[in-house]
Amino acid sequence: MTSDAFALDPQLAKDTVVVCDWPLARVLLMNDARYPWIVLVPRRANAVEAFDLSEADQLQLWREATHAAELLKAATGCRKTNIGALGNMVAQLHVHVIARNEGDAAWPGPVWGVGAAEPYETGAIGVQVECMKALLHAPAPLGGG
Amino acid sequence: MTSDAFALDPQLAKDTVVVCDWPLARVLLMNDARYPWIVLVPRRANAVEAFDLSEADQLQLWREATHAAELLKAATGCRKTNIGALGNMVAQLHVHVIARNEGDAAWPGPVWGVGAAEPYETGAIGVQVECMKALLHAPAPLGGG
Repeated sequence: MTSDAFALDPQLAKDTVVVCDWPLARVLLMNDARYPWIVLVPRRANAVEAFDLSEADQLQLWREATHAAELLKAATGCRKTNIGALGNMVAQLHVHVIARNEGDAAWPGPVWGVGAAEPYETGAIGVQVECMKALLHAPAPLGGG
Repeated sequence: MTSDAFALDPQLAKDTVVVCDWPLARVLLMNDARYPWIVLVPRRANAVEAFDLSEADQLQLWREATHAAELLKAATGCRKTNIGALGNMVAQLHVHVIARNEGDAAWPGPVWGVGAAEPYETGAIGVQVECMKALLHAPAPLGGG
């Protein structure tokens, strides 16, 4: 069954905390203190692959992902950002943007499927979300194609 | 030392075969018969992160990656495409586009760092490259922003 209304996938909702909405994507913080890790979910129903989106939305999705990577890099001074749209386990289209450093829990491999998430402490998650809000409320990329 | 001339990273050159050039990217076939696996390398010197590119090039890179995913999906009937820009091991900016299926060597995890590449048989690699050429010579995405 499909619906015309966007609703966040339950697994994504369980693993993350909402930070804010950008023009296209809902911006989520992965509840895993091992890495600064953002997930962008286009607020469009029934999108699985990036090419399921309109061309304008495709461009906006990647614009927002690249912008998130640039903000994460500037804020954390990380060695590298990783951008990935996999969706092998959660079908709803989503893009990961992760700040990576030598010596982090998965370095130099990808983060997905490595060990178990380490949720932020109660209290710390609120602080982290506020930090991400401040960071990601930097002027958002323009909407449209 | 940096240079103004684009040159393919030696590790990427070793692991792949050149298929063709798109408006921005050199299109490579990963020499790993376990997955249909394309790598796009923008022909720009000294780019490491997507946001190192001009805005027009950023949009073109993602346009080409999304287009490659759509072509791979149509040609292979794969369950899901994976798009990833990691670069933890090879600094030169490159985007992976991979056709994934249940039961493949890494499913449902990411492909990177899982087992060892299984190079195509001599002869088979030529056939595979010709197939990819035919597939990817479908009308290329327009250049420019």
